[in-house]
Amino acid sequence: MAMIPDFSLPDANRRLVLARRPDGHPTARDMALDWAERPSIAPGQVLVRNIYLSADPVQRGWAAVLPIGDVIRGLAVGVVIESLNRRFPEGSLVFGMFGWQDYCVADAATILSCVASPVLPASAYAGVLGMPGVTAWLALTSIAPPSSGQRVLVSTAAGAVGSLVGQLVARAGGTAIGLTGSGDKVARCVGRFGYAAAADYKAEDVDDFLHAQSGEGFHTFFDNTGGGTLDTAIRHMARYGRIIQCGTAATASWSPPPCGLRNEREVLLRALTWTGFVIFDHHPQFGDAVAQLSRIAVEGELAWDEDIEIGFERACHALDEVFAGRNTGKKLVFIG
Amino acid sequence: MAMIPDFSLPDANRRLVLARRPDGHPTARDMALDWAERPSIAPGQVLVRNIYLSADPVQRGWAAVLPIGDVIRGLAVGVVIESLNRRFPEGSLVFGMFGWQDYCVADAATILSCVASPVLPASAYAGVLGMPGVTAWLALTSIAPPSSGQRVLVSTAAGAVGSLVGQLVARAGGTAIGLTGSGDKVARCVGRFGYAAAADYKAEDVDDFLHAQSGEGFHTFFDNTGGGTLDTAIRHMARYGRIIQCGTAATASWSPPPCGLRNEREVLLRALTWTGFVIFDHHPQFGDAVAQLSRIAVEGELAWDEDIEIGFERACHALDEVFAGRNTGKKLVFIG
Repeated sequence: MAMIPDFSLPDANRRLVLARRPDGHPTARDMALDWAERPSIAPGQVLVRNIYLSADPVQRGWAAVLPIGDVIRGLAVGVVIESLNRRFPEGSLVFGMFGWQDYCVADAATILSCVASPVLPASAYAGVLGMPGVTAWLALTSIAPPSSGQRVLVSTAAGAVGSLVGQLVARAGGTAIGLTGSGDKVARCVGRFGYAAAADYKAEDVDDFLHAQSGEGFHTFFDNTGGGTLDTAIRHMARYGRIIQCGTAATASWSPPPCGLRNEREVLLRALTWTGFVIFDHHPQFGDAVAQLSRIAVEGELAWDEDIEIGFERACHALDEVFAGRNTGKKLVFIG
Repeated sequence: MAMIPDFSLPDANRRLVLARRPDGHPTARDMALDWAERPSIAPGQVLVRNIYLSADPVQRGWAAVLPIGDVIRGLAVGVVIESLNRRFPEGSLVFGMFGWQDYCVADAATILSCVASPVLPASAYAGVLGMPGVTAWLALTSIAPPSSGQRVLVSTAAGAVGSLVGQLVARAGGTAIGLTGSGDKVARCVGRFGYAAAADYKAEDVDDFLHAQSGEGFHTFFDNTGGGTLDTAIRHMARYGRIIQCGTAATASWSPPPCGLRNEREVLLRALTWTGFVIFDHHPQFGDAVAQLSRIAVEGELAWDEDIEIGFERACHALDEVFAGRNTGKKLVFIG
């Protein structure tokens, strides 16, 4: 457990709570700092001391429905410091829905993964072994297992999910083609994340790029953006291709309902299968996915980037950076 | 073989050929009647005398790319009258891509099904046991097998495909809900085709109807139309629901590309699986599907309607009726 710092246990629990309904993504103006008593636990529960808060795009949607006054919904990596649940013994490293606060009362419903002996730094359990890593692993292996000779297109290819998808495709002998948002990200896709080619969708013509890179058509499209990129990409799919809909980052607002090209004819004529993937539906598979990814990671065969802010007070800034696309790798806030 | 008429074998082969490129669906003005020699066959081939020509919406797409002067592409039921292929002996009833003509040289690539001893009238092999019936059977059983307690929405519910989907869902203990285009068709859906409820989309508010009928959401949407109906229906799907895209009848022209509501967020948040189904990809399963449907049909447990024109000269009229939606059941032309 040498990698996990020793924590003093102050009685106070710093919490970021929702002060008002955000207009867009939640910012510092929408949150208030609140000090509460360190909570106590009941049978079946554990007390988690958070170490890393995770800043994720999905928090926009969560904050849109969170009751005002509640702790900001967010994922975190922490340590079990008190336990009344034998599945999660004291000293375990846990990852789950612990909220943006120092201490969290957690149970089997909120803990996504738990390891007694971490094999990677604690921060990895929020990234390559956390929600993004497990999303990439489970979505790809359950919907469209990559294999030799397959061409797989990935949007937000340099992101925490996409960077792992590229490597998993390449490991399986497939060809990963990436779409991302800057020249620097293109370079990281190709240099670090296993992509055979990548394009900056802001600077290049996506249709031309896909025409050049699709070969006989993409067998899989791992889509984190939707929008015009999806409308273009679906017209470069191979027959019997699979689309994994893992995010809709390209569309900032769904009210009023936005329009785009009709795509059902592509689904029909290409005999596509288009599947939505929501990681929180796959809680029972989470631990196994972490174990499998850990094996690959400790063999040194996975690259990932982390972008870590230091200090609880940097949490709102970290989220701003994520929504501005300025993070380089998994954005975390160290609060230990 | 008492149900199959005895044919004289004139030397001439009446053929409808494409005279010019259709603007919309092929009409009499786009076709010419042509008399050719009765063809002869080579090893591996058989000579088929067509009995029923099948008039199908898909012929619009076929005629859009058929070389001018070629026989109108179409399905037909016929009898093998000469055979140089042991898989298809003389006297067999066959269904396949035989074109709109009296005689066709056919082989394993063009014959979709072949029965030595028909158990239903020959016309059934173009309908309930033909392309529409096998489409309904294979699409449903391979993509979303119906089961007890499931709610299945079907568009073009009174059509040759939809009327069978309703019955297969009801047989499995599910609840079939139909969308169709007239009050008469609504009555046939509910009275004959196993639907628990149906609506005339031209006269009723589809969103209101689906809101009332979706229960906790539709588990399956068997969609033959796409368009605005799809955009409405996808917002009434249950989580993990399945959409079978089997046709796009609602959209008359795809050039210029039409727009509609963006649907990828529904795919994502509802964790849907949306799959295109093209019957011609499933040639190897066709014969087995015919056998299974035959068993159900001979037990008297399937209802279907046929709408048969008499005489080769009625073929173009039959197609007009299909595209006007004026047919009542599978539209066929008896040319025996």
